[in-house]
Amino acid sequence: MSQASDSTLATLRGTLRARLGDKGVVTAPDDLAPHLREWRGRGVGHTPFMALPETTQDLAFVVAQCAAAGVPMTTQGGNTGLVGGQIPQGEVLVSLKRLNRIRAVDVAGDAITVEAGVVLTTLHEAAAAHDRHFPLSLASQGSATIGGLISTNAGGVHVLRYGMMRDLVLGIEAVLPDGAVLHGLKALRKDNTGYDLKHLLIGGEGTLGVVTAATLRLFPRPRGHVVAMAALDSAEQAIDLLQTVRAETGALAAFEIMNSVSVAFATALPGVRAPFTAPWLALMEFESASETGLRDLVETTLGAAIAAGLATDAVVAQSVQAAQDFWKLRESIPAGHRAVGAPQTSHDTSTPVSAIPAFLKAADALVERLSPGARCVAFGHAGDGNIHYTAIAASAEAPFPAAAISAAIHDLAASFGGSISAEHGIGVFRRDELPRFKDPAALAMMRAVKQAIDPRGLMNPRAMLAHAAAPQDMGVSAP
Amino acid sequence: MSQASDSTLATLRGTLRARLGDKGVVTAPDDLAPHLREWRGRGVGHTPFMALPETTQDLAFVVAQCAAAGVPMTTQGGNTGLVGGQIPQGEVLVSLKRLNRIRAVDVAGDAITVEAGVVLTTLHEAAAAHDRHFPLSLASQGSATIGGLISTNAGGVHVLRYGMMRDLVLGIEAVLPDGAVLHGLKALRKDNTGYDLKHLLIGGEGTLGVVTAATLRLFPRPRGHVVAMAALDSAEQAIDLLQTVRAETGALAAFEIMNSVSVAFATALPGVRAPFTAPWLALMEFESASETGLRDLVETTLGAAIAAGLATDAVVAQSVQAAQDFWKLRESIPAGHRAVGAPQTSHDTSTPVSAIPAFLKAADALVERLSPGARCVAFGHAGDGNIHYTAIAASAEAPFPAAAISAAIHDLAASFGGSISAEHGIGVFRRDELPRFKDPAALAMMRAVKQAIDPRGLMNPRAMLAHAAAPQDMGVSAP
Repeated sequence: MSQASDSTLATLRGTLRARLGDKGVVTAPDDLAPHLREWRGRGVGHTPFMALPETTQDLAFVVAQCAAAGVPMTTQGGNTGLVGGQIPQGEVLVSLKRLNRIRAVDVAGDAITVEAGVVLTTLHEAAAAHDRHFPLSLASQGSATIGGLISTNAGGVHVLRYGMMRDLVLGIEAVLPDGAVLHGLKALRKDNTGYDLKHLLIGGEGTLGVVTAATLRLFPRPRGHVVAMAALDSAEQAIDLLQTVRAETGALAAFEIMNSVSVAFATALPGVRAPFTAPWLALMEFESASETGLRDLVETTLGAAIAAGLATDAVVAQSVQAAQDFWKLRESIPAGHRAVGAPQTSHDTSTPVSAIPAFLKAADALVERLSPGARCVAFGHAGDGNIHYTAIAASAEAPFPAAAISAAIHDLAASFGGSISAEHGIGVFRRDELPRFKDPAALAMMRAVKQAIDPRGLMNPRAMLAHAAAPQDMGVSAP
Repeated sequence: MSQASDSTLATLRGTLRARLGDKGVVTAPDDLAPHLREWRGRGVGHTPFMALPETTQDLAFVVAQCAAAGVPMTTQGGNTGLVGGQIPQGEVLVSLKRLNRIRAVDVAGDAITVEAGVVLTTLHEAAAAHDRHFPLSLASQGSATIGGLISTNAGGVHVLRYGMMRDLVLGIEAVLPDGAVLHGLKALRKDNTGYDLKHLLIGGEGTLGVVTAATLRLFPRPRGHVVAMAALDSAEQAIDLLQTVRAETGALAAFEIMNSVSVAFATALPGVRAPFTAPWLALMEFESASETGLRDLVETTLGAAIAAGLATDAVVAQSVQAAQDFWKLRESIPAGHRAVGAPQTSHDTSTPVSAIPAFLKAADALVERLSPGARCVAFGHAGDGNIHYTAIAASAEAPFPAAAISAAIHDLAASFGGSISAEHGIGVFRRDELPRFKDPAALAMMRAVKQAIDPRGLMNPRAMLAHAAAPQDMGVSAP
């Protein structure tokens, strides 16, 4: 990809403006600015202009015109991504924000069809209005859009019960790199008619096409809902407790653990409280079809777990407010340690669930070796083997080899058969590490698929698999 | 693909025998015969020889040698497929039967790693031996192998609760068309490091490579287990009952419906009984973590459903024998109507669940129009929208335009946004119909992927997407 000339871009901009109107092609720096800033302040991008199509047909036109002009594109949803893939560095920025209709709700069929720009909380509300439940839930749900959640295969706190975004998608509509529209909005539970192409686009980070709409699974709204917190001595106890409460209740929907370092930083924020002081806390959410009996079942199960030595204490939230307070503690952890004024480096690794305790013990030891006195925050989705692990320097002046620490944490996860990116994706920030960890045959197959579907490398050319001629990521730095 | 010369094949056979030994290369007609017969008698294939590698490395050698010689391969597991894809027509037959070890069980991590040739019932037993549950269940489970179940993305009776085979696979090991080994046996719940390539191989029908092993999800063994049967006046009632029992119990694991025609043919077999005579029966299976309360909950829910007009009668199995009798009725349906001495044509369509009643009404009408007096068997997985629908001529002499009936049934399913193959796949028997129903952009993308991964078309060259130079399917006829 050679950089497009100014005259090529001017012609393209004019062609798109003629079709999309003034609202559909944005060049004013103030309007562009929020779309160019990495939201955690990790860099600023640039773009000749931003296209905002309102329909799939208009998006297909945008992609076809960019393709005809040989101009690369970067796609953006709610700009909440964590790996830098949504920030353009010279590409045309294609925003899905205006493609935001709820197209259809099939209540009897437990399915909803929404466009890519629909915000996750809007989807939650639409499902609830029909007495249905869409279970994907994560911190950025007030901004994150369905297209981005699909393209990054988002995770969150309910994966344990409902799976990742991948598991919630029945059908997809997308615009492919040549501008063709893939019509795949089927509301089918079963369809074995060839390669399941939606799984290339889900988690494809926009490198094989742009997701424009999806048909998603809905669920009956659970009537029973119980939240509890347990105090634990160790990560080993957490895994044993997880197995027990899952098998005994059959109702576990979330199982989040937090070490004492993460809790201490979170409770330093105003209005955040913890019910126990302990080496580890486990936040548990239970759901059942009927309200009857769930609270008793959870209390009995946790009582037996304490008696069996699987927890030192536990409390079941007795009010909606108490349940919200427990969740507030968990959700305040990222903000809590981001506020610490010392160098830090974060990770999104996963391991098999059974390997979590050994992984954490080894991680703490290697961080102490590389940066003596560093604080280690560990929290997250124990039920999925996905612990968010952040090393924070002992002070602003302490030696802190961030790159070496991250490389060692990633090597460690890999040594347990783990992943360097459990739910955030590869994007730009993890791109250069991918070849070190990916199976060579898998990497070759990925490149063959990319070459077959997007031979000129015009779709998100710097994400995941960098195109040879893509521009540098000068404005956006790794975490 | 030009047909390989006899000398090329003789050299290849010698090379493979030198590595695999005499047991690894079979040419004796008696030994080959069971592998060449379509198991329902729908044709016979032929092959120069059958290779039976015992390890992934040996399989990689087989594939690499065939690739080097330009010789196409057809892969076979338990030879239970329903679309003819496992029967060679001149290709080297690669059997996965001897690649049949259980490699590892991770009880705490709820994962098991098995090789492709492991039979499904063997997997069930291995999971049960560790107090775990592997939920995929289907009629051919005593013969069907894991590799085939993955390559065809098998369904069965528990999709409603646990999903298809696709949803149960955590990681895959495969040999790619060039003989490279894809190492992807991760036991991770989350791994967002690039395209999820396993989803190309799952349901890929062996056209992109050979699955050699997989890491599969296990579940806690449900302690509560209740089976019930309801009598219904209509398919509409069945859908309403499905919604109600699913939402009220949160424990529904299977919901199978059978029309009176299918029940009549099944109960004509010795030892098969039905508890009710009604236009429709619904077989329901419920599971819960705890034994306590499930039976009462099901009885209360079904009682309320009858009172609300969602069923005319219902019975909960009061013994293991009674539960087995209910399942025996359901499982006897295919054999029941296959035994009828009149022309028939079968289908594996799906529609959105909510469209099942309208689909069935229209299907019955079009069959009556094309073949007056024909009997229509309808049964299957109502919870997945997947009804197996068979039209059977009124007599051996009655006019019965089978091809026209099938084309019309498929058109009808498509008109409801449905699929012509819900769980059996495309293989050879549905291959020529695929282009008529598949979205053109999807079909082009499928061809591009196939071309990128298997450019010479050597892997299962007649399945799904026929390679231009593949031999005719002279020995195997469509159903």
